[in-house]
Amino acid sequence: MKSATAFAPATVANVAVGFDILGFAFEAVGDVVKVSTTEQPSVSIREITDATGKKALDLEIPLDPARNTATVGLIKLREHLRLDFGFAVSLRKGIALGSGMGGSAASSVAALVAANSLLERPLAKESLVEFALLGEQVASGTAHPDNVTPCLFGGLTLVTSMRPFRYVQVPVPTNILAVIVHPHCRVDTRDARRVLKSDIPLADHVRQSANLGGFIAGCYTNDLELLRQSLVDVLIEPQRKALIPAFAAVRSAALEAGAIGASISGSGPSVFAWATSKQAAVRVREAMVRAFKDGQVTEVDSWVSPVSREGARVSR
Amino acid sequence: MKSATAFAPATVANVAVGFDILGFAFEAVGDVVKVSTTEQPSVSIREITDATGKKALDLEIPLDPARNTATVGLIKLREHLRLDFGFAVSLRKGIALGSGMGGSAASSVAALVAANSLLERPLAKESLVEFALLGEQVASGTAHPDNVTPCLFGGLTLVTSMRPFRYVQVPVPTNILAVIVHPHCRVDTRDARRVLKSDIPLADHVRQSANLGGFIAGCYTNDLELLRQSLVDVLIEPQRKALIPAFAAVRSAALEAGAIGASISGSGPSVFAWATSKQAAVRVREAMVRAFKDGQVTEVDSWVSPVSREGARVSR
Repeated sequence: MKSATAFAPATVANVAVGFDILGFAFEAVGDVVKVSTTEQPSVSIREITDATGKKALDLEIPLDPARNTATVGLIKLREHLRLDFGFAVSLRKGIALGSGMGGSAASSVAALVAANSLLERPLAKESLVEFALLGEQVASGTAHPDNVTPCLFGGLTLVTSMRPFRYVQVPVPTNILAVIVHPHCRVDTRDARRVLKSDIPLADHVRQSANLGGFIAGCYTNDLELLRQSLVDVLIEPQRKALIPAFAAVRSAALEAGAIGASISGSGPSVFAWATSKQAAVRVREAMVRAFKDGQVTEVDSWVSPVSREGARVSR
Repeated sequence: MKSATAFAPATVANVAVGFDILGFAFEAVGDVVKVSTTEQPSVSIREITDATGKKALDLEIPLDPARNTATVGLIKLREHLRLDFGFAVSLRKGIALGSGMGGSAASSVAALVAANSLLERPLAKESLVEFALLGEQVASGTAHPDNVTPCLFGGLTLVTSMRPFRYVQVPVPTNILAVIVHPHCRVDTRDARRVLKSDIPLADHVRQSANLGGFIAGCYTNDLELLRQSLVDVLIEPQRKALIPAFAAVRSAALEAGAIGASISGSGPSVFAWATSKQAAVRVREAMVRAFKDGQVTEVDSWVSPVSREGARVSR
């Protein structure tokens, strides 16, 4: 029997201006999944640990392989390829549950990338998307590829079509560093979806489109001033920000400290910012953490990281 | 007393995926305005002719300078600069009224560019935008810069902000030729706005954003296949197409003849298409004209033209 371990990065979905379509991968933190082949023709969960490697059965992660985001894609993969062997999965959750940092996508993607590497004829990464989305589906009730895509492929990705699945790698401007701050309060993705109105004013669509267009143009032309003007969410953030304690103060703090933009990471509660130098990113991170603490959110994790160019990969 | 004549090109607003923000200039047709300075400190209309140079007082163009799109901006410009002389305007309408080809923007812009060239210290083109929008306002009841911007500056433009006014020149992929077909039936811009719902489904916003993002990425990367996939309006066209006779057949004909995309030009009834070679553009134009005629629209004008790189300019 063989085994492989894969790392899949945390991801920031939406990126202020691309609800359900934009996302970027974050190099500093991710999930690690070890997959071993088994003679028993099924998929099982061997172990779940937290970021420190401690056994963590209180993580609220389902142990039923049919409901666990790391294994549900593997079950389908086995069926699809009619494999006569099974997989056993050990999952190390580097990404906190319900943090808005793409944890379910990362578990799902890491398991698939590890398992895929064990196949006699590995599939192309593109072919893993549909299986990874099944993991998203069980975790959040919806299957949007805005986390799965950057998690698998790295970089800043724009999903241009769901069926057939198509995406574009948008170039990340030179020197951009991402900051993520995760306050220890949970926002369930389902709840975060529930607060969104199913209809939006046409005028908001126009403004958000102008921002999306400016953001993408700014990425291609390395125009940081255009990015600063464009990285503003007039559509989703106003509806969701009340779910995140101290959000307005945290966002302001980031911008005052020199971020070119800051908004909710995925469905929150994590908040991301983009900065244009290491020094600026460190200042932005400190300012955001302080604003959370001033807002009575005492437990906060934070990272500074380049955008991952690589995405998920077999680590050993 | 001095005089100057300026040409301002027809423009295609919206461009399928950028309602109220995207537009491109069309080299083949436009309005021509001759502006002369007058001792009398006011703005007057001297003559209005049609494309053939024939006097055309039946064009339904208001002769009151305060309500005429070519003069209203000049009136404000005079006030703004406290000029002690006036302007007399002769307007040659190359662009049919109510055609959806940016005729009111072109009259307004041509008059301003001509008048500006007569000033001792001409303003930057950027400063003319607000005056040109006044012309749009009297013509259509709304002041959107999606025609004025490409008309003034040329190219394919994305308006990223209204206040302050900001725009981006998006590169037009090599070899793109535009086709415009104008069926002789009127769609009033006000009516075309009235049919639009003030709210749209969030899901449609997501799909249209994916198309806008793909379109802009495709322009920067010269990816014609991505443009073909993205140049699709899921939002506005479905609401407006019933205003245009035979629209569905015309659009299908364009695509079947090899266009990479086709949609309503501005608020219609003109329909534009993009093609990737001269031969393809000619085929597309013929197919679109035929589809209009098969749909009982007997009078149709049509053009093939590169995107204007230059925009409005003084011609002599």
